[in-house]
Amino acid sequence: MTDENTKSRVDTSTMWGGRFNVGPDAVMEAINASIGFDKRLYAQDIQGSKAHASMLAACDIISVEDEVKIQQGLDTILAEIEVGEFTFTTALEDIHMNVESRLAELIGDAAGRLHTARSRNDQVATDLRLWVRDAIDGLDAETQRLQAAMIDMAEQHAATIMPGFTHMQAAQPVTFGHHLLAYVEMLGRDRGRLADCRKRANESPLGAAALAGTSFNIDREMTSRSLGFDRPSANSMDAVSDRDFVLELLAAASISGIHLSRLAEEIVIWASAQFDFVRLSDGFSTGSSIMPQKRNPDAAELVRGKVGRIIGALNTLMVVMKGLPMTYGKDMQEDKEPVFDAVDTLGLCLAAMRGMMEGAVANEDSMRAAVDSGFITATDLADWLVRVLDLPFRSAHHVTGELVKLAEEKNIGLEELTISDMQSVEPAITADVFSVLGVENSVASRTSHGGTAPENVKAAAIAARKRFL
Amino acid sequence: MTDENTKSRVDTSTMWGGRFNVGPDAVMEAINASIGFDKRLYAQDIQGSKAHASMLAACDIISVEDEVKIQQGLDTILAEIEVGEFTFTTALEDIHMNVESRLAELIGDAAGRLHTARSRNDQVATDLRLWVRDAIDGLDAETQRLQAAMIDMAEQHAATIMPGFTHMQAAQPVTFGHHLLAYVEMLGRDRGRLADCRKRANESPLGAAALAGTSFNIDREMTSRSLGFDRPSANSMDAVSDRDFVLELLAAASISGIHLSRLAEEIVIWASAQFDFVRLSDGFSTGSSIMPQKRNPDAAELVRGKVGRIIGALNTLMVVMKGLPMTYGKDMQEDKEPVFDAVDTLGLCLAAMRGMMEGAVANEDSMRAAVDSGFITATDLADWLVRVLDLPFRSAHHVTGELVKLAEEKNIGLEELTISDMQSVEPAITADVFSVLGVENSVASRTSHGGTAPENVKAAAIAARKRFL
Amino acid sequence: MTDENTKSRVDTSTMWGGRFNVGPDAVMEAINASIGFDKRLYAQDIQGSKAHASMLAACDIISVEDEVKIQQGLDTILAEIEVGEFTFTTALEDIHMNVESRLAELIGDAAGRLHTARSRNDQVATDLRLWVRDAIDGLDAETQRLQAAMIDMAEQHAATIMPGFTHMQAAQPVTFGHHLLAYVEMLGRDRGRLADCRKRANESPLGAAALAGTSFNIDREMTSRSLGFDRPSANSMDAVSDRDFVLELLAAASISGIHLSRLAEEIVIWASAQFDFVRLSDGFSTGSSIMPQKRNPDAAELVRGKVGRIIGALNTLMVVMKGLPMTYGKDMQEDKEPVFDAVDTLGLCLAAMRGMMEGAVANEDSMRAAVDSGFITATDLADWLVRVLDLPFRSAHHVTGELVKLAEEKNIGLEELTISDMQSVEPAITADVFSVLGVENSVASRTSHGGTAPENVKAAAIAARKRFL
Amino acid sequence: MTDENTKSRVDTSTMWGGRFNVGPDAVMEAINASIGFDKRLYAQDIQGSKAHASMLAACDIISVEDEVKIQQGLDTILAEIEVGEFTFTTALEDIHMNVESRLAELIGDAAGRLHTARSRNDQVATDLRLWVRDAIDGLDAETQRLQAAMIDMAEQHAATIMPGFTHMQAAQPVTFGHHLLAYVEMLGRDRGRLADCRKRANESPLGAAALAGTSFNIDREMTSRSLGFDRPSANSMDAVSDRDFVLELLAAASISGIHLSRLAEEIVIWASAQFDFVRLSDGFSTGSSIMPQKRNPDAAELVRGKVGRIIGALNTLMVVMKGLPMTYGKDMQEDKEPVFDAVDTLGLCLAAMRGMMEGAVANEDSMRAAVDSGFITATDLADWLVRVLDLPFRSAHHVTGELVKLAEEKNIGLEELTISDMQSVEPAITADVFSVLGVENSVASRTSHGGTAPENVKAAAIAARKRFL
Repeated sequence: MTDENTKSRVDTSTMWGGRFNVGPDAVMEAINASIGFDKRLYAQDIQGSKAHASMLAACDIISVEDEVKIQQGLDTILAEIEVGEFTFTTALEDIHMNVESRLAELIGDAAGRLHTARSRNDQVATDLRLWVRDAIDGLDAETQRLQAAMIDMAEQHAATIMPGFTHMQAAQPVTFGHHLLAYVEMLGRDRGRLADCRKRANESPLGAAALAGTSFNIDREMTSRSLGFDRPSANSMDAVSDRDFVLELLAAASISGIHLSRLAEEIVIWASAQFDFVRLSDGFSTGSSIMPQKRNPDAAELVRGKVGRIIGALNTLMVVMKGLPMTYGKDMQEDKEPVFDAVDTLGLCLAAMRGMMEGAVANEDSMRAAVDSGFITATDLADWLVRVLDLPFRSAHHVTGELVKLAEEKNIGLEELTISDMQSVEPAITADVFSVLGVENSVASRTSHGGTAPENVKAAAIAARKRFL
Repeated sequence: MTDENTKSRVDTSTMWGGRFNVGPDAVMEAINASIGFDKRLYAQDIQGSKAHASMLAACDIISVEDEVKIQQGLDTILAEIEVGEFTFTTALEDIHMNVESRLAELIGDAAGRLHTARSRNDQVATDLRLWVRDAIDGLDAETQRLQAAMIDMAEQHAATIMPGFTHMQAAQPVTFGHHLLAYVEMLGRDRGRLADCRKRANESPLGAAALAGTSFNIDREMTSRSLGFDRPSANSMDAVSDRDFVLELLAAASISGIHLSRLAEEIVIWASAQFDFVRLSDGFSTGSSIMPQKRNPDAAELVRGKVGRIIGALNTLMVVMKGLPMTYGKDMQEDKEPVFDAVDTLGLCLAAMRGMMEGAVANEDSMRAAVDSGFITATDLADWLVRVLDLPFRSAHHVTGELVKLAEEKNIGLEELTISDMQSVEPAITADVFSVLGVENSVASRTSHGGTAPENVKAAAIAARKRFL
Repeated sequence: MTDENTKSRVDTSTMWGGRFNVGPDAVMEAINASIGFDKRLYAQDIQGSKAHASMLAACDIISVEDEVKIQQGLDTILAEIEVGEFTFTTALEDIHMNVESRLAELIGDAAGRLHTARSRNDQVATDLRLWVRDAIDGLDAETQRLQAAMIDMAEQHAATIMPGFTHMQAAQPVTFGHHLLAYVEMLGRDRGRLADCRKRANESPLGAAALAGTSFNIDREMTSRSLGFDRPSANSMDAVSDRDFVLELLAAASISGIHLSRLAEEIVIWASAQFDFVRLSDGFSTGSSIMPQKRNPDAAELVRGKVGRIIGALNTLMVVMKGLPMTYGKDMQEDKEPVFDAVDTLGLCLAAMRGMMEGAVANEDSMRAAVDSGFITATDLADWLVRVLDLPFRSAHHVTGELVKLAEEKNIGLEELTISDMQSVEPAITADVFSVLGVENSVASRTSHGGTAPENVKAAAIAARKRFL
Repeated sequence: MTDENTKSRVDTSTMWGGRFNVGPDAVMEAINASIGFDKRLYAQDIQGSKAHASMLAACDIISVEDEVKIQQGLDTILAEIEVGEFTFTTALEDIHMNVESRLAELIGDAAGRLHTARSRNDQVATDLRLWVRDAIDGLDAETQRLQAAMIDMAEQHAATIMPGFTHMQAAQPVTFGHHLLAYVEMLGRDRGRLADCRKRANESPLGAAALAGTSFNIDREMTSRSLGFDRPSANSMDAVSDRDFVLELLAAASISGIHLSRLAEEIVIWASAQFDFVRLSDGFSTGSSIMPQKRNPDAAELVRGKVGRIIGALNTLMVVMKGLPMTYGKDMQEDKEPVFDAVDTLGLCLAAMRGMMEGAVANEDSMRAAVDSGFITATDLADWLVRVLDLPFRSAHHVTGELVKLAEEKNIGLEELTISDMQSVEPAITADVFSVLGVENSVASRTSHGGTAPENVKAAAIAARKRFL
């Protein structure tokens, strides 16, 4: 791709550095031209034009001869762009005019018939929907790949015990596999949102023309079908002014980014010397030549930070669209850069997270050591008192508190108390209580649907594989 | 509802006015207590507890006698709250403890068994999901009512001609009904997003307990069913830490609010003396006792402005959730106020918009006058040249420009040019051209799928009624 | 304060729960009335009216008799509100009409003269500026109190050694006092922003009237002076349409909230069992009756989360103001709730943070233990090689890496290597090198301006006290 | 500038289109490298290094010979970059390493001494502060130029009468010059915020080193002075972790962008056929070859829309910084792109707005016609009744309402009522009343400070020129 535009962008940024003044023409060109970013829609623009040309010929609006020339010309242009031999021109403003102008060079007058029963308004809406649809498919696949990596890891660690935290304090023992599968669920919802967005986005605006429809006897069903859309949009004014499909994708991407930021935060914490729960691969951490013990979780920090730009992109477009009267205003040209950046960013974060997960090694000893400190099975004891001795929950809570205090005074774990220690607090306690006090027992007992018992986690990993992969 | 808390909220705000200093206890109570806002979940909290109690009894975890007492006690509390005889106490921190404490007063020890196999973490997640589900149903119904009002108005104005604008410049004639149906489409997508959000939100976290599941032999399917959820959530850690359902609702509400802000902007413009396209009812505008011609479109401005707080609420919760490690952190207590405010705001805006629409009178003369100025059928002329004379689109464009220039010089409309005027520019033009030059002809000719022809608009209104009402 | 409005707010929220439908009048009242929140401006509203009345009399626009009645009437109303005997009425819409209507009841016709040469537009702008000014003063004082607490703590820990982290990995030893003083700097800039905002906000809009100024011979300098403003605003249209002062306060509050969120995050991390750097007071953490080791840093988590609502408030008002034509639109009524909430929230977070700091106990042993693991003085060694042996920095880096590798193989600290170990890698090393290897030595050596040497920190604390307290 | 990186950016975007999978190394490089955007800091990076080298020599930390080589080498690199002969390499990650690596090629070992007593943490903070300072100066100058254009236009239209709007309804007559000067005030505050931000940003982090300061005997005052900073920062940890200066600039830019969006909205409205208040120059509007009457205000719409990306950039960095523990995390690498984009965008919007203003022609007839419809001097009449007849304001309001009703019935303007018409409503009215009823009289009477009387506006324009230019 001959990148004339990059130069112009660099000039722009210099221009506004305040160092010198340029004339109004340069300002208008700089603020108005979109070819710097919308050239990214070239494939979709050509795809849409090809479908439009076929339909025009099928409806006898243009001749078959002209259609053939148009199709060949567009194929040539696509090839030129893909091998980098196409010159984008800022003076031609946008991708549509760049392509159309080249088409006229290539095939002459017939090029002038392509724009029959179409306007730039429905054309750009079509291009962007096609791009968004591709982006959704790409993000869905990338999210699925991350799920796959996490399900594998979860299965491997279905019985690896670690603290389950609330408030960053150990609350109850869980398994690392269970923890990971929580993220698999989040990612599954993320994919559900992408799919729902795709469903709503997948309508064809082509044929809405400038805003009112057209008097040509076109076949919108035909272009819709051939571009893979589910149906033509029902109202021509809505068709050219709607950008819901971008907003909805940005919202879905933001929620997905938030999930990744939570996992990234955990990785940063786990990679600290104090936690030492995981060791990242060399590929996804950076060290220091003089401090070899330092393994900075750079990729995780970047994933955590980059959610900011996704949320920022969503916010950007919401501000742009707020209060715009129908149908098309030039403000709406600001729809593309945020979604391009957000999709790139989320795709990169998903891939980086997968890379981190695939290379990360769990330090099972540190996880286990973190479980053993404290009285992490206190709730198991309380539950036993309720279940076996039939104490009301609040009384069981009180007895447990007394027993923990006793263990604390003796500086031992709950499971190290003797049965007579126990009975000094609650005479009805029997030796059966010890069956719930070890962390293995605790974890194994959480067999309720969705609970952390290793057998549950193994089954959940298998189920997840079926549901998601 | 005895509103002890309002007082405390007022004190809080005074406190931070910087005028005096309070001790740490007051600060901690002020920052920590949620009863001031989460009491709004009372019905859902009691509903969830009743379902949990039934299940505990069905699974032989509590006795039938205890269950009966719990059910009666909870019914009593619900009645007390609804008649305003319940005293909420800030010292009891949240809705859960307020209810549980009152239950203990009413039924004694049995109250202590209700919390078996449950924790505040899964309880609050359940309450909030139930509330969100109700809110979605309410917003969906309110959106549908607005669609109904707009479809009625669209049908009535299926043939009322007005300018279709781009860049706030008249571009092509459309009908007012067509314009209104564009919003009916937007609102339809809004309802689609609400429905998709509901579908994903409708999973039961109850039984996830603190985070790890429970060792009690509970039946999560049973509570899920009896609360109208589609299924219990698959992972206990995800169940207590997930707030996607709130984020997704806030995103859907923001997009809906943006649609309303666009319509509101149009109403403000239309209500200006310069446009004078609509006259709002007295109920939805405010006047001035000394300037009777002034009809301020206050409600429309408020709707336009209030989208800000919905977007702000979405932004708030995104910032809150960013980078939170699992499972539960107290930060997540900040999930409720934004969603309460956003749902109230959107509901109010929808109702206000409906009220405005129902009372608004279209000024058909002004709309028509705005169409007649300019050369709004120029594109129709160009299309005729393509369709009938088979000129390439770009040549037709050129001929049209010449004809417009001629009409402009003569200071007449395009339809007032003589046939010989026309032929002086393009000899092939025939008298048939006049069939497309009047605005009625123009509008009537836009019969492509989704186009603005009155017959299309009538059919579209009928179809919309079938799809949406 | 007789709180008629709270009821109406509750009704509103029920109304939009979707359960029932209300008529348009109720909708318009619900969306339009601001008394529910703007009553909070009562003191400022009365203050502004009193200054206006004095000026009107001084300029012979109203009689001295009328002025006396107005002043007494306003004083009465202020007293009624402050003792809670004033009845706010939603039908009177806002605070201005509530006060004016009561004034008419109290003093009759003279009340009708107060509104001469004034309109609600300049009145509400004046009220809100006065409120914002008070809020700034309150936040400044609260921020200063937090600085005071942190400077005290910094002084006490000027020599307490802890790891300085990058990427949550120990990088170089610092002192805890130095770490705390970094926040004192941030808070100092926060106060600078508040002061700058105050300076720009402190202009009097009073006398701009509806938007065009007035033909009465008023003295805007006089009201400006008596209300403590620096000057009357220069343009009447700007005066009634400007909300910069709110936006700027919200931006300053957001940055301040971000600082607090960073400290809060550190507190949550430090309070984890794995770090164990601080123990929070009972007052600012919550425990579990059965897990006494658990000390949840709830207040820190709330502070971390609440930055979301401050940023959300900023975003809200930015969206509201975007694209509003001059001068006043009803959208601007949405300016108050965000700033009220953001100021309350930030004030509360500052006070809670101070409470946490005052009650927190540093665990010096844990901090020190975290420093000793790893090779945290590696950069000191490299710097010694540069400084004393004159190696280029990059060569010194290489030698240090070799020495660390040697120490790692021997499983000892750098300072435990023998001089001959050292010389085996770099023959020029002398025993002087040991002077920089202990962490105390390392810390003591960082005496550059702003560095972490304990003597620096002590001096910096004294300097901070002078600059900020 | 040989733009190796652009290619890699294009690959990245393709990569995440979901079409193919790349290995972890490519992912890590793509997410980690910053040279694609931070090369924009090249001038600042070299400037900072040159100051550092001078100081190191002055303090005898490096030799004068080495310093000379370093200075010459850096000068060479600067020249290479500026003529486009420098090859940026992604493998070298960032601008610092790209420059340092080239320096080593050019001058050999001496290059290795430059990084003494410095780290990338203080280096990047220094670079970015220098860039922000330049950006502020550029934005200030550009804002001033816009003020100059608007003051000129205001002076020219000091007596051009137009409606002053509230709620987009004509409320009182004002002059166009007065309206424009309201924006000059806003822009003045924008410049005040930039200046305050500059003041706080202008501290030198250089010498904070990695985070703890350094043991070298450096002179931070010297580098601070030579780089034009006001002072070295007081705390080394704050110095490397602070990004307030970026956040504050983004907040100031957002408020400025909101002002421009308001003016842009007005231009779009004014340029509509219905208002027809201004005619934009050809350079700043786009037409249609077939609809010559259409003059789309594209530049205004773009300015209105682009505020979205500035607010989005602010939001982005706030999310990034929220909850980050000290001192440096890789998340902070996300600070640059938002500020680069926001500064470019605001600079472009300011220049475009100036271009629009300079080329816009006010249509005085349309403005005047809009004033004459309605009863826009009703408040003047009411004020006369108060001022001359001493009616209480509220009674005057009532009398005016009656008179307007009368005029409306007779279908004439207020000034066309006879004196006996007037007296039939209020017998005390005299012929003097007509002196306030014409719009010229109305406007001329608003002589209060900041009011719209033409003489005021002329004086205000002169004063503005003194204050701002």
